[in-house]
Amino acid sequence: METQVKAKVHNFSAGPCILPPEVLRKASESILELDNHGLSLIEMSHRSKPFVEIMEKARNLVRELLNVPDNYSVLFLQGGASLGFYISAINFMKNEGGKAAYTDTGTWSSGAIKEAKLLGEVITVGTGKDNDFTKIPKGYTIPSDADYFHITSNNTIRGTQVKEFPKSPVPMLCDMSSDIFSRKINVSDFDLIYAGAQKNMGPAGTTLYIVNKDKLGKTGRQIPSMLDLQKQEAKDSMYNTPPVFAVYGAMLTMEWMKSIGGIAELEKRNEAKAKLLYDEVDRNPLFKGTTAVEDRSLMNPTFVLTDESLTERFDKMWKEAGVSGINGHRSVGGYRASMYNALPIESVQVLVDVMKELENNA
Amino acid sequence: METQVKAKVHNFSAGPCILPPEVLRKASESILELDNHGLSLIEMSHRSKPFVEIMEKARNLVRELLNVPDNYSVLFLQGGASLGFYISAINFMKNEGGKAAYTDTGTWSSGAIKEAKLLGEVITVGTGKDNDFTKIPKGYTIPSDADYFHITSNNTIRGTQVKEFPKSPVPMLCDMSSDIFSRKINVSDFDLIYAGAQKNMGPAGTTLYIVNKDKLGKTGRQIPSMLDLQKQEAKDSMYNTPPVFAVYGAMLTMEWMKSIGGIAELEKRNEAKAKLLYDEVDRNPLFKGTTAVEDRSLMNPTFVLTDESLTERFDKMWKEAGVSGINGHRSVGGYRASMYNALPIESVQVLVDVMKELENNA
Repeated sequence: METQVKAKVHNFSAGPCILPPEVLRKASESILELDNHGLSLIEMSHRSKPFVEIMEKARNLVRELLNVPDNYSVLFLQGGASLGFYISAINFMKNEGGKAAYTDTGTWSSGAIKEAKLLGEVITVGTGKDNDFTKIPKGYTIPSDADYFHITSNNTIRGTQVKEFPKSPVPMLCDMSSDIFSRKINVSDFDLIYAGAQKNMGPAGTTLYIVNKDKLGKTGRQIPSMLDLQKQEAKDSMYNTPPVFAVYGAMLTMEWMKSIGGIAELEKRNEAKAKLLYDEVDRNPLFKGTTAVEDRSLMNPTFVLTDESLTERFDKMWKEAGVSGINGHRSVGGYRASMYNALPIESVQVLVDVMKELENNA
Repeated sequence: METQVKAKVHNFSAGPCILPPEVLRKASESILELDNHGLSLIEMSHRSKPFVEIMEKARNLVRELLNVPDNYSVLFLQGGASLGFYISAINFMKNEGGKAAYTDTGTWSSGAIKEAKLLGEVITVGTGKDNDFTKIPKGYTIPSDADYFHITSNNTIRGTQVKEFPKSPVPMLCDMSSDIFSRKINVSDFDLIYAGAQKNMGPAGTTLYIVNKDKLGKTGRQIPSMLDLQKQEAKDSMYNTPPVFAVYGAMLTMEWMKSIGGIAELEKRNEAKAKLLYDEVDRNPLFKGTTAVEDRSLMNPTFVLTDESLTERFDKMWKEAGVSGINGHRSVGGYRASMYNALPIESVQVLVDVMKELENNA
């Protein structure tokens, strides 16, 4: 049931993106009436018992799915990862002589670096700039006198992904927006994980923070209340009205993840989907991948046509097959077939069949 | 049709709060499929044509309903008014020798003052502290050397409302979270209006900013990107992924406002609803209002029983009548019957009838 393909569209959107059909159904129902409470989900106080329970359940599902240690807090905030760039820095960069180490894997880490520079010194310890971000930097040294080390786990635009996180001598902060819940991670390797919801976690509008409480409150800064993870944690993510619908959608999506077997099962499915597509990209002489093979993202495979004159024909074919959203990011072009958790392998097969068909008729 | 009372519950929630039935119906449908696009609203890219049109329509509806001048921008951001406290200050308080004037009308303006103090000097020009915030301060002088003047239009907790805004010699910033779209305002009297959506504007999860573009970029500060109104305005509220569902819900709610006759009609309805309830509070010897009569909020009437021993009986009676959400804020107690735009006068009549019945049977 959970792998049922939607009738009309094979949705490869890079985010906001495909969600499981049962999440959409339950979310839709909740707008008319939440369970049997006589009220719509979006008409009730966030301090009401039903919503407090939803928030609690969402937090517990994160703990359960990712095996979050007890000394970590789970928060549902707002602003997306772009506000997370600043929130992560302001909660970890010391007020006096602050210094942080960053890897630069493309657009999103460049954005994170820019915001951190407002608060202190930034050392870029590894960058993919020389290879146009088609490789993940490796083998760098993280200075042990940095306040923290920041890394972006997956570059949605270029289609690269960190396969092995470095051992960091200082707190490790990670923007996991586009691959959280897609593979097993060891939360205690990180001191802060943050992620916009609108890929694997649910609808746009909330941002997950998983933070080591023991590492908060050590910067000597005065932090604006809404950006202060310690204040947010003391209020259980309800310093003010939370984004009710987005939190509920995340809760439903995590319930679905749990129901199909959790992260281990999702990782298996994501590996199978990625193998199916990358194998065709490598086999089919009309296509080639655009990133280093060892750094290929399981979430956002990117590829180009070897003969650009086929573009019009290929575009017509995949559109006719009901495939949607595989145009590359406007900044790089080519193709990007985002394959988030809820995308069934049947949709990948439809795309692969179109690629084969193009070869057979070229 | 739009005044149809929901079958089960008369929803006086202080926010998130009642929304028009047709908004709930359309929002619910959009989660299954947006119009005939073959995709759910929450599964499609925010850069897709359908969503870009929704964002554009939402902005234009704000302009139309509130008659927003051309040199003002309309933005849909995140974080609620509590992040707005800091955003308003950081966009208007000068970096060198910054100074701002605030009125303190209770919890929310106290919160705004606290965030502004992180950035510069704050002068409280008027406060309701001496009367426990049951009166709106008046007759104060706004210093002409302040960078800006900040005022909160409605205190949801105490049930007070600014009836006449002062003439300000410096830019006037206003938190209108709980009464925007409830009455006619002259936008050009203000340089920044901000408002969390979850009262009159739609579901929780987005925050409206209406800002005089000519007054931005004058502080000499480096502002974090997501908090920088000039940067957000350059990106048409899409610096990053917006809270898609909340923006769509706001658009639907504004379409409803327009369909019933706009702000003039809403103001008339809100005055009629408030008169019905306050008349009963003043007439019925078992009740009394808790704020200065001239400062009574049309959105959040507050009142108490004159004989507290009737509490249990009264609470049982209104609950049996299907009334929901009239318990006072946890910080003050008593009763608060929030009557936002979508609450039909029929629901107010049900509450008034219960108050009369209590008197008749006391």
